[in-house]
Amino acid sequence: MFQFQAIDTGALNDDETPWIPFTPYDDKVFLKYFKIDPVHGEVVSLLRAPAGHEMARHHHTGTVIVYTVQGAWKYLEHDWTSRAGGVVYETASTRHTPQALPGDQEVITFNIVRGELVYLDDQDRPLAVENWKTSMQRYLDYCQAHGLEPKDLTAFAG
Amino acid sequence: MFQFQAIDTGALNDDETPWIPFTPYDDKVFLKYFKIDPVHGEVVSLLRAPAGHEMARHHHTGTVIVYTVQGAWKYLEHDWTSRAGGVVYETASTRHTPQALPGDQEVITFNIVRGELVYLDDQDRPLAVENWKTSMQRYLDYCQAHGLEPKDLTAFAG
Amino acid sequence: MFQFQAIDTGALNDDETPWIPFTPYDDKVFLKYFKIDPVHGEVVSLLRAPAGHEMARHHHTGTVIVYTVQGAWKYLEHDWTSRAGGVVYETASTRHTPQALPGDQEVITFNIVRGELVYLDDQDRPLAVENWKTSMQRYLDYCQAHGLEPKDLTAFAG
Amino acid sequence: MFQFQAIDTGALNDDETPWIPFTPYDDKVFLKYFKIDPVHGEVVSLLRAPAGHEMARHHHTGTVIVYTVQGAWKYLEHDWTSRAGGVVYETASTRHTPQALPGDQEVITFNIVRGELVYLDDQDRPLAVENWKTSMQRYLDYCQAHGLEPKDLTAFAG
Repeated sequence: MFQFQAIDTGALNDDETPWIPFTPYDDKVFLKYFKIDPVHGEVVSLLRAPAGHEMARHHHTGTVIVYTVQGAWKYLEHDWTSRAGGVVYETASTRHTPQALPGDQEVITFNIVRGELVYLDDQDRPLAVENWKTSMQRYLDYCQAHGLEPKDLTAFAG
Repeated sequence: MFQFQAIDTGALNDDETPWIPFTPYDDKVFLKYFKIDPVHGEVVSLLRAPAGHEMARHHHTGTVIVYTVQGAWKYLEHDWTSRAGGVVYETASTRHTPQALPGDQEVITFNIVRGELVYLDDQDRPLAVENWKTSMQRYLDYCQAHGLEPKDLTAFAG
Repeated sequence: MFQFQAIDTGALNDDETPWIPFTPYDDKVFLKYFKIDPVHGEVVSLLRAPAGHEMARHHHTGTVIVYTVQGAWKYLEHDWTSRAGGVVYETASTRHTPQALPGDQEVITFNIVRGELVYLDDQDRPLAVENWKTSMQRYLDYCQAHGLEPKDLTAFAG
Repeated sequence: MFQFQAIDTGALNDDETPWIPFTPYDDKVFLKYFKIDPVHGEVVSLLRAPAGHEMARHHHTGTVIVYTVQGAWKYLEHDWTSRAGGVVYETASTRHTPQALPGDQEVITFNIVRGELVYLDDQDRPLAVENWKTSMQRYLDYCQAHGLEPKDLTAFAG
């Protein structure tokens, strides 16, 4: 069988993939993975963070497209605020510090991340890297620890 | 000045870009454009359709990533249903007929469309084409007709 | 086994994939396929055309990157000529008519085509479509007709 | 004027962009830049290295497509050799050590690099990063030092 014979459009619903703590970086932030592309290095996920929470500064090696589902957030380095229903388009090789704004609701964003995310120290030295491999490993580890049957999020199998 | 000096991460909120009827194809469907990439041909938008409404069958030349914001929908050609909070990943050169399921709410989806969308007749002959050019023209026409100042959705200018 | 466990960097040399006539469009033009991406719709190939030969006008739904390996060619619609060692970057949703310049050598180009190619008639109506599916089918048909064992050009398997 | 009005297919020939030493990493390796995409982080270039030369081990955050123009080379980590006329497809988040094979000719490759390249020490710690920004800066510095008028390789302006 050829690879292309296994390829088709597919869907995954909210309750078919779990919220996973963003260990070891930030146990207040949770990720829900939908698709992890092992050829092009693209990760499609939801992210959930408490209102008022600041996340670590990082660098993106490719583009990121963000749709804000709930709440409001900004980057320390930019003046704009993204609110529910808004979109942020991040260009390649940019860096920033996400801040969930104070409020009644958790912030939830839908993210299409192409390439890697590099956490930086105060002097811009790389501390840790997130990519399709660490994302898939976090998902597999979580499923194993919680007795869930993992889905193959790296397949495009309809 | 070089092009790269104008490039930066940017944001657009819900009330900064209008809902536009999907003329001439379907006056019950509305689009809200956020980013229109004139180099790679990628369009980032929201789509809104009445519950129970069926849209025309079409073919995609590249990938489409859909996040379902509200309501539920399916493709006539597939068994799954996508519900609020779910994700659909459409692979290149596939075709399908979208159906908004009956219910109390309009269907709203967030869509990253790479490449073109080709509407087909019953015998799979192309009827019309949607791409970054027709999207930008629809936006400009709508702004002009309604006295709105158009934003440059084709720039990545922070 | 998960899909990602089969993914790795791979190589294919000149003599490991055949020159295939570009039937049914142009039997003077030959293609050599290296990689056919069934998720994103990207085709990586060499193209060979006789000096002085004009190809049919067409439209691209995504980007095309061309490296000219041998000979010289132009588009009827542009003033520049691409010569051996030069690069052409085609932006999404553009159309043009390739002309191999007269000379002693066949024109050979290396092409990364994202998305589909649509042949047009004199009134810009679509005549035929080339994409990852028609490319893979042409390769499989050629292999079968010539007793060659086809490789899985749609896999990224090292 | 909107950004899209400046976008068109364009060409650059071999003698229109210089060979630039790959400083500060390797003064035996030269790069010739054709296109540097500041939105998506893609760099299109030729690379030239002496026969028998080994380059530093590195990691790629996205895909790399290589067409071997002249000579032969391999990765220390793989068994295959790429020869003139061959293609290598590198998947995202892979790492390897390039070796130009001994022979009469320099190795020349045409490369489409999406995302960043990270040089690593013996313990896989990041040493340095190459991306669209460092590529454009190297080009601008070289032009200034040699009295050349730089072209805007980051524009897609026909």
